[in-house]
Amino acid sequence: MKKTAITPTRTENYPEWYQQVIQAADLAESSPTRGCMVIKPWGYAIWENIQQDLDRRFKETGHVNAYFPLLTPLSHFEKEAEHVEGFAKECAVVTHSRLKEVEGGLEPDGKLEEPLVVRPTSETMFGAMYSKWIQSYRDLPLLINQWANVMRWEMRTRLFLRTAEFLWQEGHTAHATKEEAISETKQMLDVYADFAESILAIPVVKGEKPCMERFPGAVSTYCIEAIMQDGKALQAGTSHFLGQNFAKASEIRFLSKEGTQEYAWTTSWGVSTRLIGGLIMTHSDDDGLVIPPKVAPQHIIILPIYRNNDERDKVLDYCKRLKEKLQKTQFNNQPIRVQIDDRDLRGGEKTWQWIKKGAPIRVEVGPRDIEKNSVFVGRRDKAPKDKLSYEFDNFTDKASAILEEIQNNLFKKAIDFRKNNSHKADSFDEFKAIFTRNNDKYPQIQGGFVECFAIDSTEIEEYIKPLKVTARCIILDQKETGKCIFTGKEGAVKMIFAKSY
Amino acid sequence: MKKTAITPTRTENYPEWYQQVIQAADLAESSPTRGCMVIKPWGYAIWENIQQDLDRRFKETGHVNAYFPLLTPLSHFEKEAEHVEGFAKECAVVTHSRLKEVEGGLEPDGKLEEPLVVRPTSETMFGAMYSKWIQSYRDLPLLINQWANVMRWEMRTRLFLRTAEFLWQEGHTAHATKEEAISETKQMLDVYADFAESILAIPVVKGEKPCMERFPGAVSTYCIEAIMQDGKALQAGTSHFLGQNFAKASEIRFLSKEGTQEYAWTTSWGVSTRLIGGLIMTHSDDDGLVIPPKVAPQHIIILPIYRNNDERDKVLDYCKRLKEKLQKTQFNNQPIRVQIDDRDLRGGEKTWQWIKKGAPIRVEVGPRDIEKNSVFVGRRDKAPKDKLSYEFDNFTDKASAILEEIQNNLFKKAIDFRKNNSHKADSFDEFKAIFTRNNDKYPQIQGGFVECFAIDSTEIEEYIKPLKVTARCIILDQKETGKCIFTGKEGAVKMIFAKSY
Repeated sequence: MKKTAITPTRTENYPEWYQQVIQAADLAESSPTRGCMVIKPWGYAIWENIQQDLDRRFKETGHVNAYFPLLTPLSHFEKEAEHVEGFAKECAVVTHSRLKEVEGGLEPDGKLEEPLVVRPTSETMFGAMYSKWIQSYRDLPLLINQWANVMRWEMRTRLFLRTAEFLWQEGHTAHATKEEAISETKQMLDVYADFAESILAIPVVKGEKPCMERFPGAVSTYCIEAIMQDGKALQAGTSHFLGQNFAKASEIRFLSKEGTQEYAWTTSWGVSTRLIGGLIMTHSDDDGLVIPPKVAPQHIIILPIYRNNDERDKVLDYCKRLKEKLQKTQFNNQPIRVQIDDRDLRGGEKTWQWIKKGAPIRVEVGPRDIEKNSVFVGRRDKAPKDKLSYEFDNFTDKASAILEEIQNNLFKKAIDFRKNNSHKADSFDEFKAIFTRNNDKYPQIQGGFVECFAIDSTEIEEYIKPLKVTARCIILDQKETGKCIFTGKEGAVKMIFAKSY
Repeated sequence: MKKTAITPTRTENYPEWYQQVIQAADLAESSPTRGCMVIKPWGYAIWENIQQDLDRRFKETGHVNAYFPLLTPLSHFEKEAEHVEGFAKECAVVTHSRLKEVEGGLEPDGKLEEPLVVRPTSETMFGAMYSKWIQSYRDLPLLINQWANVMRWEMRTRLFLRTAEFLWQEGHTAHATKEEAISETKQMLDVYADFAESILAIPVVKGEKPCMERFPGAVSTYCIEAIMQDGKALQAGTSHFLGQNFAKASEIRFLSKEGTQEYAWTTSWGVSTRLIGGLIMTHSDDDGLVIPPKVAPQHIIILPIYRNNDERDKVLDYCKRLKEKLQKTQFNNQPIRVQIDDRDLRGGEKTWQWIKKGAPIRVEVGPRDIEKNSVFVGRRDKAPKDKLSYEFDNFTDKASAILEEIQNNLFKKAIDFRKNNSHKADSFDEFKAIFTRNNDKYPQIQGGFVECFAIDSTEIEEYIKPLKVTARCIILDQKETGKCIFTGKEGAVKMIFAKSY
């Protein structure tokens, strides 16, 4: 069997492989606070790249950023009934404002008159402010986004995918008409989908959540769903049309052009550090992390190789010249990001560290390469030993194109994987068979995406729950309805089902 | 008397003027959560510009970003005794993990075994992780920064200056030697000072905090101090040399080159959204906010003026052409930021809104300007009616230079103000006189910066506290000591005193 850098492999134990990839790439780890992670520099740099690209897209679509408080008074949080019911079971609550000394240590003191909820999301706080800021149709639309931390108490946590605290962005908008709010909801879904595919190289299906998966308080929830390498689905982003529910709860009213008092129509939409989990599970392999170049913290790692001080000076000079020349070229409209790794470590160990960290391109430079005025190039989308020698200028000219090629290869590979693991089911028997059969070649693959007709009702839960399958989304823009493969009822719509994170 | 856009003026009521400037510029406002503010888009955009510039400086000095948990278990928080004592009285504490329904509403439920402290700063959490990550001298230095929200429960809050929650960055570094840690502490002080002066146009004094103002747990605290237009001092940034205090509390030990186990030497340093308060109070005037161009959300506001649809089309075309041309020019190594304000509002009202919001340059464009191929330009560093006509190309060529000139003018004005309000005192009588005399011309000015010899001891508090004066900092790099003007003791050092925020 081929030796791999990550143990276990995906087929041996997929969940454990995921943890090991994160550890080997030094992306994040658990902290002393139960369920909360530390996002380490290499992982956080991916998040910074995600932020930068998304932030530009939000601003290009007319949104501005702001910052709203972390804590919401309980009385405000309670205002939208469905909403609070959806989040009550996972709220961190601040009840005290200081600590006092007691025998053996400290304990909370200064009990607050009203408990404060650490935001699991900020609809109610935005609502409270919007009701003050919005008076007239002239104040609309109001299009604000916030980058923030949020908390949802989780019993079973997994780095990036499910943690008690996570980082995200939440857009909250208010509009004068229903049509405009729906169009905003869909616009942001498109922004997310395009970002996921063109930047993260994660193919996604756009859809609408069936009733049982809707955001608490929303009229409709749109989502992008991605397939992971174990065939499970990951919800990678959501965009909610909130109707007038939150406007009524928070009294967001405006004077219309016609002079009447109306409730505003609101939306909210968000993506989180969960995207990094999706990125890991879409692209990584049994040698560790694979990062699409567009969000890689470094594009090119230069590895100097030398045996003595004399060689060292020559090699490092050459490496610096290479770095400078590369930094003058652009990839994805930004200077190429290059790092020289001159740590005092064995060459093999160093190379494998960068493979495990997912650096898109590794360049080895030793005295023999310098003699030939060349560089020795490895790519993360090829096998570790599949390396090519390039003439110096030829490589610096082509580096950007190679990165583009890697980005495209990753996307294509992910598209192929999804294609191979997407199925249609015309009956419940077929449906069941797909989710229960063994995949001999890839035992980690549990089902995949299954498309079938189903009614948008909790009635289907009795069929899918025993299989641990969830209804991921209703496919958008359907022309015809059909017969539900579960209940046999007519008027069913095409949905995608999968096991899920 | 001259009519001003802000009521009251600085001389009439300085604290109230400050609140009114924030409101008129739409920077921030109070939220339903006691002591917590909402940073509104125009205010948040200033923070984004501050972040972008500082983040570049941190990275250029070798730091990387990461993210650590919001909540710290009480048992960890307690580890450094002085530190916890310093923050115990202002900590928000999470004690419950869900809400349950009771008659009449919800109440906290799911009491945690161990209370969790919302970070007032993160020395203890970084310490807990650093003790795992640092094993050998090869792991040092470790240079990590985090952009985050923190909470310090404050009874008397003021927007930006003192709020229960605020945004900041906190750098935490660990080093193998004392010298290296001290040099890091001073390097970051220099980064802050240069940033404050060259970007925010706020002149600052670099100094070391006297013992009673030191950060809880630090060996020495360095700071930058700025003077506000009421003569009070604002601490605008701090950099702490923590010695081995936190390393001992958190067991951050490493194997030295010589093979011995040593405690690491650590530092921490931070600036916060308080800088925006300092910016407001340094530059703004009785017509509202004045923003140094380098951090202004928009550099140039174009105000189209027309009376009918025919004029409208012509004027807007011309404005768009102007905007496009300006955006192709650079200021401070970035494209100039331009906004056309075509809202349906009276011209005078619109112009005054932008004056109050502190936009550096306003450009009015009406049919007559177009006929002359010119634009009519107002600058925030000149009187509102002091406007100049420029030929179109001449203006687009000069715009960057005008912004540079405004930036420099603001800095010069602030330097002059500090000069006029800095004093020396050779005796306690002189000292007292400066802080108690009336300033007839500027009644808001309470003293200013006063330099004198004083001993670094709590003994001086009985002299300065009744005057509501604080010891701001010990001047760096002093050659000689002198006699304390308070206690008469020898061995005193030159310090700066002021009333303060």
